[in-house]
Amino acid sequence: MTFTLHEQLKNDTHPIMELPCSKLLLMNNRSFPWVILSPKIDAAVELTDLPDEEYDAVMREVRMVAKAMQKAFSPYKLNIAALGNQVRQLHIHIIAREQNDAAWPNPVWGMASIPYDDASLQHCVSQIRDAFGAEQQKISA
Amino acid sequence: MTFTLHEQLKNDTHPIMELPCSKLLLMNNRSFPWVILSPKIDAAVELTDLPDEEYDAVMREVRMVAKAMQKAFSPYKLNIAALGNQVRQLHIHIIAREQNDAAWPNPVWGMASIPYDDASLQHCVSQIRDAFGAEQQKISA
Repeated sequence: MTFTLHEQLKNDTHPIMELPCSKLLLMNNRSFPWVILSPKIDAAVELTDLPDEEYDAVMREVRMVAKAMQKAFSPYKLNIAALGNQVRQLHIHIIAREQNDAAWPNPVWGMASIPYDDASLQHCVSQIRDAFGAEQQKISA
Repeated sequence: MTFTLHEQLKNDTHPIMELPCSKLLLMNNRSFPWVILSPKIDAAVELTDLPDEEYDAVMREVRMVAKAMQKAFSPYKLNIAALGNQVRQLHIHIIAREQNDAAWPNPVWGMASIPYDDASLQHCVSQIRDAFGAEQQKISA
């Protein structure tokens, strides 16, 4: 199975890790801890395009990543969304929100991105990887 | 199991139907075909608050409703999101988007609502109920 990530998603993000069904990517925007889950099916646009089993598996990955984001950042609220108005290739946003963040209480989309510097990007990626690892261990325990 | 829908969700919507795990509601905003799925668990705020089985079941209902919205409105794109920045009680938006709608290509949140008149509200509710019924039949066939 080959999969090509959409050019814009590739440009806007940094890879965190490969999951069985999807790529986990960090949005290069330090305003919010914001990851994107990209199911590895080129032609998928809508969640309804995923076959039954793939849908369940992707939704389990969404949940796992959401728990990792909670573990890593203890956000006041998570925002989880599949929009695709700008980039049609199926991708799911999982964003950790705080009451004093740059967009609160509005959604985050449409604001200019403030990119990470290298050190803080690596730090953020590590935080998410570690939290994801801890969640996985909890499930397999 | 008792469940009380949040006052604001109640005020902003019209009931469409009861599903096993959630209430299906129509946002009273004729700018977009826009429904809300409200899982019937008072204390749930995040999708991660749902126990494993409940999560899978709610996600299946999301998918079924998404398919019904596609059948009823053939949208250019669906927007599916659990945000909860304004109303914390867990609820999932499923919105049919068109390239010439009032917010495109931006998300729909934050715009003033234009309420339905009675006849068009009933028509929209019927369209969604019929499409949902057809989807259910497809699955049980």
